[in-house]
Amino acid sequence: MVADKSFDDIYIGEKATHSKTISESDVYIFAGIVGDFNPMHVNEDFSRKTPFKKRIVHGMLSASLISTVFGTELPGGSSIYLSQEVVFRAPVFIGDTLTAEVEVIEKRPEKKIIIFYTRVFNQKGKTVVDGKAAIMKNK
Amino acid sequence: MVADKSFDDIYIGEKATHSKTISESDVYIFAGIVGDFNPMHVNEDFSRKTPFKKRIVHGMLSASLISTVFGTELPGGSSIYLSQEVVFRAPVFIGDTLTAEVEVIEKRPEKKIIIFYTRVFNQKGKTVVDGKAAIMKNK
Amino acid sequence: MVADKSFDDIYIGEKATHSKTISESDVYIFAGIVGDFNPMHVNEDFSRKTPFKKRIVHGMLSASLISTVFGTELPGGSSIYLSQEVVFRAPVFIGDTLTAEVEVIEKRPEKKIIIFYTRVFNQKGKTVVDGKAAIMKNK
Amino acid sequence: MVADKSFDDIYIGEKATHSKTISESDVYIFAGIVGDFNPMHVNEDFSRKTPFKKRIVHGMLSASLISTVFGTELPGGSSIYLSQEVVFRAPVFIGDTLTAEVEVIEKRPEKKIIIFYTRVFNQKGKTVVDGKAAIMKNK
Repeated sequence: MVADKSFDDIYIGEKATHSKTISESDVYIFAGIVGDFNPMHVNEDFSRKTPFKKRIVHGMLSASLISTVFGTELPGGSSIYLSQEVVFRAPVFIGDTLTAEVEVIEKRPEKKIIIFYTRVFNQKGKTVVDGKAAIMKNK
Repeated sequence: MVADKSFDDIYIGEKATHSKTISESDVYIFAGIVGDFNPMHVNEDFSRKTPFKKRIVHGMLSASLISTVFGTELPGGSSIYLSQEVVFRAPVFIGDTLTAEVEVIEKRPEKKIIIFYTRVFNQKGKTVVDGKAAIMKNK
Repeated sequence: MVADKSFDDIYIGEKATHSKTISESDVYIFAGIVGDFNPMHVNEDFSRKTPFKKRIVHGMLSASLISTVFGTELPGGSSIYLSQEVVFRAPVFIGDTLTAEVEVIEKRPEKKIIIFYTRVFNQKGKTVVDGKAAIMKNK
Repeated sequence: MVADKSFDDIYIGEKATHSKTISESDVYIFAGIVGDFNPMHVNEDFSRKTPFKKRIVHGMLSASLISTVFGTELPGGSSIYLSQEVVFRAPVFIGDTLTAEVEVIEKRPEKKIIIFYTRVFNQKGKTVVDGKAAIMKNK
């Protein structure tokens, strides 16, 4: 069962994470769902000639791991995702292991809104995506 | 082949779109890639008891259609996705037809950065996601 | 992050669950991975003439939800799956919402082995799969 | 078309198999269907620090190949899968070639039930999963 913390049980500084090694199939199937077949993602031959030298993972796939933490760990269950800002800071390659981390930085009790600092980092600890998000709890 | 417009060829007010009817398999496979099994997305029995009455599509799946427009239509090809802000304005259900639309609202020639107003709307024209994005062209 | 309870923290009677509505795409993609294209699973026309009247979900797909609880909830993390017995008690149809539940029924401290009663039930509370499992903790 | 042998045509000692090299995408998509994102399966960085040194295949994915033999080879067609016991004997890694083999060890004519010894072995002949299963024929 996914977690489901109430507004009052969540504290400033609380963190949660979700980790995954991004496979080629993740990138290809994500491309197939959203329709983003930019050659930087699915054309190895083209990608060799780019500054990155190989295929890169869709930024929004990396960013989506943040929403996974919200949906399954903190706050989980009965939450409404209000907004998300993401800054793409570094490329992600197939085979990188990503960890999405969310941290409570502000609570607004009047509407039960929680502000999170969100980031995704790779196996070397390098931040690849970061930004803020707002979540509303209905309990 | 995906489009690949240069910075100078892109004008303020220019728009592009990408549309798709979101299937149950889109939602399920997206859940499987990112690991977000919140019951609002994959549990029909649970969802019937929520205010939405049925399973809703992951907000980041809807938002990812915006990046598809950037990757394949405008500007396409050789672009660097710098940042994306999204506000989730209305629920999206399985079977909804979404259109992601991007519109050039500002050009910053010194670094070849383009600012877009981005939104996703459903088959009734209702905006479900919106916000701004920044893209840097390398040509 | 998935749970990771130690042997000593787990008590007799402790339970955990994982729930999901089984989609047609779940059944089809599972069929594609394992190669089980029995017409009862993927041939709607054939299935109409069987006693079940429609396509049924692979028993091992339903049973696999039990291992999901072990892998992500209880005990989670550092566990070794020793054995699983399953008895298939009732058919599962596309669109059914399944809940896999595991319950600790015995602890064997000498080897840190935990015996679970495991079952999967549908949205009507009907048990579709049950049996026992053994898990060894390495902490 | 899948096979469909009648109870009387099946003899003690009869065997059938199903083989597949397990890909990373098999493991990832299986994880996505059942929701089992234990880091031993999808986190290469984490797995390097475990005794296995790399990501392992879900035990129930290996075990599911047994049911594929039942569904497509022996007895195939009109069969009811009554029960399956599995003992997980050795780890399976991405890239291993698995063969599931079933062997008839007992026939119970009064209810047309067939008992099988079932096992899965890898490309080195090592048994990774074994146990017994019961199948009922309706012809």
